[in-house]
Amino acid sequence: MASARVARLATTGQDQRPHIVPITFAVSGEFLVTAIDQKPKSTLDLRRLRNIAANPYVAVLCDHYADDWSQLWWVRADGQARVVDGEPARGAAIAALREKYPPYRSDPPRGPVIRVAVESWSGWAFTE
Amino acid sequence: MASARVARLATTGQDQRPHIVPITFAVSGEFLVTAIDQKPKSTLDLRRLRNIAANPYVAVLCDHYADDWSQLWWVRADGQARVVDGEPARGAAIAALREKYPPYRSDPPRGPVIRVAVESWSGWAFTE
Repeated sequence: MASARVARLATTGQDQRPHIVPITFAVSGEFLVTAIDQKPKSTLDLRRLRNIAANPYVAVLCDHYADDWSQLWWVRADGQARVVDGEPARGAAIAALREKYPPYRSDPPRGPVIRVAVESWSGWAFTE
Repeated sequence: MASARVARLATTGQDQRPHIVPITFAVSGEFLVTAIDQKPKSTLDLRRLRNIAANPYVAVLCDHYADDWSQLWWVRADGQARVVDGEPARGAAIAALREKYPPYRSDPPRGPVIRVAVESWSGWAFTE
């Protein structure tokens, strides 16, 4: 999962509606981390942050699709998320993201960092 | 979104935990449809079905990732899902899936069909 370039973060709001967005992410120690970056946002009202504040449970999915279905796989991490703004947690997360994604080296994320403590891993790959 | 080969389906269980899985899907009339197929499952205990029975709200996401972030985009459909087993709903859904995915032509999905009535669309693409 660490080598995947993109994941999807699912959260659930107080309204019981699931929410899902693609995220850049990295592994930082025992955590998965992602951050609100400067990529242009369709809105600044970020449901992922509101949802995590109300309900820390999240799911993070990486998958691979190919029309040859024997190549399919996915990995999912279920856990609890929180927004971290203290050090060294924030700095470690940003460092892990900069290491993985070259665009972050010149322009590291300036927004909130979300840190996920993974409680369980699930995975699947096509096998006969 | 209709041309995307894979999407991710997010549901929320009675335990308030979000769940997310990759899905094949198609557009059938005004609905998004997906089905439980014969691809080998890591488990037959399908949380997506239990979650939808308890809470019909779902989110379906298609996204495109590239290391060149100017190419990024995503589209999300939020709506309500239900399992349909009556005709013509089930047959229409299976026909749409067979049309889109060649492997389904020789081996159409035999499991439950999930039909999503989309209530809102969200989207994003990188623009300066």
